[in-house]
Amino acid sequence: MTIVKLTDAERQEKIEPLLGKGWAMVEGRDAIEKTFKFKDFNEAFGFMTRIALKADKMDHHPEWFNVYNTVRILLATHECSGLSSRDVELANFIEKL
Amino acid sequence: MTIVKLTDAERQEKIEPLLGKGWAMVEGRDAIEKTFKFKDFNEAFGFMTRIALKADKMDHHPEWFNVYNTVRILLATHECSGLSSRDVELANFIEKL
Repeated sequence: MTIVKLTDAERQEKIEPLLGKGWAMVEGRDAIEKTFKFKDFNEAFGFMTRIALKADKMDHHPEWFNVYNTVRILLATHECSGLSSRDVELANFIEKL
Repeated sequence: MTIVKLTDAERQEKIEPLLGKGWAMVEGRDAIEKTFKFKDFNEAFGFMTRIALKADKMDHHPEWFNVYNTVRILLATHECSGLSSRDVELANFIEKL
């Protein structure tokens, strides 16, 4: 299956709700990002580990930064240089955690 | 135990060898960083997980960024706003992996 960028209609339907949940468009890139705060490193890295297992299963990996209780996640799709349905799927998975 | 910055003599003895192993001083901060490359995400996140367990046991956490097979690690000590013996210990642990 070829991985393609989301259409305008798909963005309206699938990205807009994420923007309402704290995700933001990244300046200068067709990507979304969100910063999560936890009680401590144990919680933050546990969260990352759950995402890592899902991401590797999807073969779709985040760009992410962590320091102590903070995790910043950026989602974009390398194969289409922008947002695809895979980013929507992974973001929605993350939101359910 | 109060956490203090490394002295010049300690830097000579403990930081210099790390600089010879691919660690570099961070511009504008008293910190060291190194970028690691792996075969894939599984290896990269496995490496991070081994460091995470050690870091949480030490109560000394890295600042790190990951995308797919790449892990960039920055070490510094919040409590003394610079490099302490904890950074040396964690860097040496990482080098042994």
